[in-house]
Amino acid sequence: MHHFKMKIINTQVMVLVGLVLLVSCNKKTKNPVSQSSNNLIEVKIDSLLLLLTMEEKVDLCHAQSKFSTKGVDRLGIPELWMADGPHGVRAEISWDSWKYAGWTNDSITAFPALTCLASTFNPKLAEAYGFSLGEEARFRNKDVLLGPGVNIYRTPFNGRNFEYMGEDPFLAATMAVPYIKGIQKNGVAACVKHFALNNQEHQRHFVNVNVSDRALHEIYLPAFKAAVQDANVWALMGAYNKFREQYTTHHELLTKTILKGDWEYDGVVISDWGSTHNTDEAAINGLDIEMGTGTDGLSSSTKNHYDHYFLANPFLAKLKSGEIPERVLDDKVRRILRLRYRTNLSKNRPLGRANNAEHHEVARKVATEGIVLLKNKDNLFPIKDQEGLTIAIIGENATRSMTAAGGSSELKPKFEISPLEGIRTRFKKATVLHTMGYESGPSQYSRVYPPTLDQDSLKTEAIQLAKKADIVLFVGGLNKSHKQDCEGDDRQQFGLPFGQGDLILAISEVNQNLGLLLLTGNAIDMPWLNEVKGLMQTWYLGSMSGQAIADVISGDISPSGKLPFSFPKKLEDNGAHSFGIASYPGVDMTQHYKEDILVGYRWHDTKNIEPLYAFGYGLSYTSFDLDNIQSDKKIYSQNDTVKITCDVTNTGDLEGSEVVQVYVGKTNSKVERATKELKGFSKVKLKKGEKKSVIISLDISKLAYYDESKSDWNLETGDYEIYVGNASNNISGYMVVTVQ
Amino acid sequence: MHHFKMKIINTQVMVLVGLVLLVSCNKKTKNPVSQSSNNLIEVKIDSLLLLLTMEEKVDLCHAQSKFSTKGVDRLGIPELWMADGPHGVRAEISWDSWKYAGWTNDSITAFPALTCLASTFNPKLAEAYGFSLGEEARFRNKDVLLGPGVNIYRTPFNGRNFEYMGEDPFLAATMAVPYIKGIQKNGVAACVKHFALNNQEHQRHFVNVNVSDRALHEIYLPAFKAAVQDANVWALMGAYNKFREQYTTHHELLTKTILKGDWEYDGVVISDWGSTHNTDEAAINGLDIEMGTGTDGLSSSTKNHYDHYFLANPFLAKLKSGEIPERVLDDKVRRILRLRYRTNLSKNRPLGRANNAEHHEVARKVATEGIVLLKNKDNLFPIKDQEGLTIAIIGENATRSMTAAGGSSELKPKFEISPLEGIRTRFKKATVLHTMGYESGPSQYSRVYPPTLDQDSLKTEAIQLAKKADIVLFVGGLNKSHKQDCEGDDRQQFGLPFGQGDLILAISEVNQNLGLLLLTGNAIDMPWLNEVKGLMQTWYLGSMSGQAIADVISGDISPSGKLPFSFPKKLEDNGAHSFGIASYPGVDMTQHYKEDILVGYRWHDTKNIEPLYAFGYGLSYTSFDLDNIQSDKKIYSQNDTVKITCDVTNTGDLEGSEVVQVYVGKTNSKVERATKELKGFSKVKLKKGEKKSVIISLDISKLAYYDESKSDWNLETGDYEIYVGNASNNISGYMVVTVQ
Repeated sequence: MHHFKMKIINTQVMVLVGLVLLVSCNKKTKNPVSQSSNNLIEVKIDSLLLLLTMEEKVDLCHAQSKFSTKGVDRLGIPELWMADGPHGVRAEISWDSWKYAGWTNDSITAFPALTCLASTFNPKLAEAYGFSLGEEARFRNKDVLLGPGVNIYRTPFNGRNFEYMGEDPFLAATMAVPYIKGIQKNGVAACVKHFALNNQEHQRHFVNVNVSDRALHEIYLPAFKAAVQDANVWALMGAYNKFREQYTTHHELLTKTILKGDWEYDGVVISDWGSTHNTDEAAINGLDIEMGTGTDGLSSSTKNHYDHYFLANPFLAKLKSGEIPERVLDDKVRRILRLRYRTNLSKNRPLGRANNAEHHEVARKVATEGIVLLKNKDNLFPIKDQEGLTIAIIGENATRSMTAAGGSSELKPKFEISPLEGIRTRFKKATVLHTMGYESGPSQYSRVYPPTLDQDSLKTEAIQLAKKADIVLFVGGLNKSHKQDCEGDDRQQFGLPFGQGDLILAISEVNQNLGLLLLTGNAIDMPWLNEVKGLMQTWYLGSMSGQAIADVISGDISPSGKLPFSFPKKLEDNGAHSFGIASYPGVDMTQHYKEDILVGYRWHDTKNIEPLYAFGYGLSYTSFDLDNIQSDKKIYSQNDTVKITCDVTNTGDLEGSEVVQVYVGKTNSKVERATKELKGFSKVKLKKGEKKSVIISLDISKLAYYDESKSDWNLETGDYEIYVGNASNNISGYMVVTVQ
Repeated sequence: MHHFKMKIINTQVMVLVGLVLLVSCNKKTKNPVSQSSNNLIEVKIDSLLLLLTMEEKVDLCHAQSKFSTKGVDRLGIPELWMADGPHGVRAEISWDSWKYAGWTNDSITAFPALTCLASTFNPKLAEAYGFSLGEEARFRNKDVLLGPGVNIYRTPFNGRNFEYMGEDPFLAATMAVPYIKGIQKNGVAACVKHFALNNQEHQRHFVNVNVSDRALHEIYLPAFKAAVQDANVWALMGAYNKFREQYTTHHELLTKTILKGDWEYDGVVISDWGSTHNTDEAAINGLDIEMGTGTDGLSSSTKNHYDHYFLANPFLAKLKSGEIPERVLDDKVRRILRLRYRTNLSKNRPLGRANNAEHHEVARKVATEGIVLLKNKDNLFPIKDQEGLTIAIIGENATRSMTAAGGSSELKPKFEISPLEGIRTRFKKATVLHTMGYESGPSQYSRVYPPTLDQDSLKTEAIQLAKKADIVLFVGGLNKSHKQDCEGDDRQQFGLPFGQGDLILAISEVNQNLGLLLLTGNAIDMPWLNEVKGLMQTWYLGSMSGQAIADVISGDISPSGKLPFSFPKKLEDNGAHSFGIASYPGVDMTQHYKEDILVGYRWHDTKNIEPLYAFGYGLSYTSFDLDNIQSDKKIYSQNDTVKITCDVTNTGDLEGSEVVQVYVGKTNSKVERATKELKGFSKVKLKKGEKKSVIISLDISKLAYYDESKSDWNLETGDYEIYVGNASNNISGYMVVTVQ
């Protein structure tokens, strides 16, 4: 026999070789990993760090294509593949341009937008949503799903609010954590975004945000902190904007000191696509993976332009010259390899699936539970399906796709059932008629198209149809076009666009049985509100949009959604807008968050400015009593947990769900406080006449405020008010407790 | 708490549901699986078959893109991704066109062409090759690697012979089996091709082959049979051509009766890209996956044209009407799901790697061992690197890429070291000069380009360079252009193209120290042979081409390759060509393999037509004696194994390897037999002066011929001659044994 010995060494063997080498190096390896990580992974990473060349390490720190980063082929380290976005796995993008790749295997389930998820006030649904979305991402062979977005709703103009979870940090955190855990159960990383203070789209690449440390820590960071510390999120995305004159993606305070220092984050920081600006800051302040530089919205004209990324050749040169120490690189690579071991190097991850009945059911549940009934005069809703009833559906949004356009959250769903289709499927006996009423032009990112049809004719047709009908459902709102609810810029007006306001008024003159279904991700002005009997906030609901709407308007399911942000009576009643353009959208590319911690209902409550619809508000077809509200004690120590109990009784005629909300205020604080802040909630489902006792716990430590004088949280002793109700402006009872 | 129960059922749970359902159905489920398969897999498939809709099943049977088939997203069954080809993993192709996708992560190791692998006569290298290639395929996320090609070398005109393993079925089988096993250790399916009788490229889509059952079974099928029965290959590709007026991809005798019937093949049959022609035949005769129909070389103009595939909607319609029974579909789906469980549903498959030093070393070893030294007058080779020595390298192939073009085996290697670069790197003391000598034009599939330079000037320059040199190495041969060694058509002439013959003669007139390195995958005419001192057959060697050539010409490694096919003195001496155009290339799209079983050396031996260079022939820098040749017995029963022993002594001055070859002939057969047929070989490496005893075993049952009168193998009793030598025409000893 021939004695050629094969020198086949597989990766595992090499890792063992690494382990042997490691013995002598072990003393100096630092292990920054959190307790939740697997120590064996850290040991494997130690050995891989010894095998990788500096060039290979640098290659791990930046894109190789629009949505992937290199692997190390000789060592069998896979590539890393990412995908937008928070509401479903985006269709395949070309290797090196923003054009869709034209594949036919990338249709998925479109889940409701995150504002809708927030409105459910149901963390179990958030986990089901995340898990289902993670399964779809895994099936599509994605290692990182670029979501959730947890930026705080500060102004109703922000074009991207629909991707976020409202104005309250506790609500956003409480919903984001199970969503992230759900995704990551699939061996797919969630990527919480956009860190931080990316609260408007207008001039997002340039605007410099100034905000107090206190508002930063109390309002804008808690959802990120919960993602890191409670959900153990594996990836985080930087933002486009500046904060105190430094870009947030590689920010000394945000990414270096707070995120990776104070919070002990052990995952990767990924830039937003094109948010990196500087090699030194990216290297030193904690950016790990640079994506999309110089290619945001443009196909690159340079071959190998990825080599010119800030964290590519320029980084390598500074490492080689010693200007940047190699430990900076090794820290990034350690995080990147940790991400690999959590995702595509994990032996345990499942295979995922997509477009299955269970995912559709989750999408429908979230959509149904997220719809908020705002007004229901004369019990316009629910509408009983019956012979002889004529329902006129008027409005472009009855048939318009709300998954097309909108920016990076755009989806290619296998199907998207429109409100009209859903209503027609459910209402078999009634006569359902439809006309557009108005037209807005095609949806497009970064461009406004004019309407193509004659608006007067559309309006005339709508009025004629409304006259014939027993009931009119106007299905309108915003849409996913540029300067509507769309990434890249902000809304331009507080009112409904495309002449909808006038149309609503005109319809109300010919038919008083008028209900509105508003598809938006933002609050709008409602000068016509008195003229409509019914009003539902129906968000963007994804694949199962039509069924969910039919579920609720038919009464098959009683609405239980609660607003995750306040609807002001007028724009100036919103805190951010009350200070003029220096506060929003900024002057000379700089803005000051002058409302400080008083965002949303905190502003309305504290300033006694009544909202049109309050945070936490939402009607039901049935009614609930909250009583027997009490705390387990009256005096608590600083490490205690308060247990609030409340009996909830369904006093109406239908099954329904209610959200019990706990707010806390501080009497006689040393600092200005909001009148009350959400600190707990629980959703309870009750049959007609049923009564349940709800317990909501909250840690006394969570009552601290961020004390700028010592740059740390400060838990004041003394009295606190605890409010329990079913909306921020509808408190059923309150008590005073004392912290010693 | 809210009591919404998540209806999340994961795939595993569904499989369990399937298992429960299975209890009542178990009796009627047929299990056609081979013993080597895992029974648990079959049970899982049983349950999946109950969950799949007929539409989903049909979707599994045809392409969704150029190189992939659909998964079942709702059940988490992944897609299936395939890649050319036998010598390395081809670059990414566009979703729905033959254009390359322009990705930058798809560079790989180019391994030597399979003719070179065959020339090594070293099955251990075949396994290392397959394993390394499989690792690269796995790293590139391919589930099926479209190779090896084991079609028999019948004519030196076949444009695709370079992808195959020569003229002898035993050699091809012996090398293919470990190659396949090596690939499949990675959880990547090998796909043996092209089944069957695809022995020429000219008119391959139309030609109808007629060949005897005996030649079919003895010559053209054994390598496929070994792939199925000895290597347990998971996939097999049909061919383009017809056999006895029926397309081979869905052939009653080939795919239905022999492959899936007699051989009990449990894998999938995949069409060649565009080789499917008929729904009924595809359905009934055993095609499982239809690829490339209507898109061979053309981008489709029809959207969703995959739905129109023979095994798509037309198949579904016949299934729904009952014209084709559902069990036909279920058999295909069972095989397809089995392939999934062996590949991308396997929990155990490794992750692969690529472009690593070990793969490069395997590529170099195969290349070095595959080079065949044909002539070495005055010990022209090896060439000692020394000061003052001037080596003239003349010829386009010294620098031309041999991985570009050639058809589906085209590769995008991370690097390809040219012969010139390899020689220059090795020869540091000598002066190495180069000129092209001739030019052939750019390489292209399915198009011939004319040269662009002035050929006379090139020739003049070459002569001048040759005059100045101490030694001339002419690096020529064929290339990968259309009508050379390239898929899609055959060669047009037996001689060297591009004026190389004249150039060689002209050089020989000015410099007698002339050695030729011929890069071809086919035999060529050598009218200039007497004028050259040295001749090496160097094939297409891939990434490590230059190093391997330098290894051998420098004497660092003594050549040990043996020809896997005969070089005839003139074209008509080749069996296929001796019968005129009815035998090759056919008349009116029909051809008859008139040489029957007497392919290659069988023809030369039996007809006493001396070859120029014989099958199994190849020189070394050292010399070997084969003696003490004997069999363990003289008389054998039909179930016996013969053990041949032979002492091999290295009688020269250098380390080297020799291939001991065992041929068997039958005295007084009832049927015409070849004088001798290869039945065993062993490669042995010996230091200078070293002697080793080699044992080669062969089963008596392998001496049977295919008896057309009973359509089965027939083992004749009586005497057989056993020949032992180091080439088919250089026998050191023989014996007669008797089978009782």
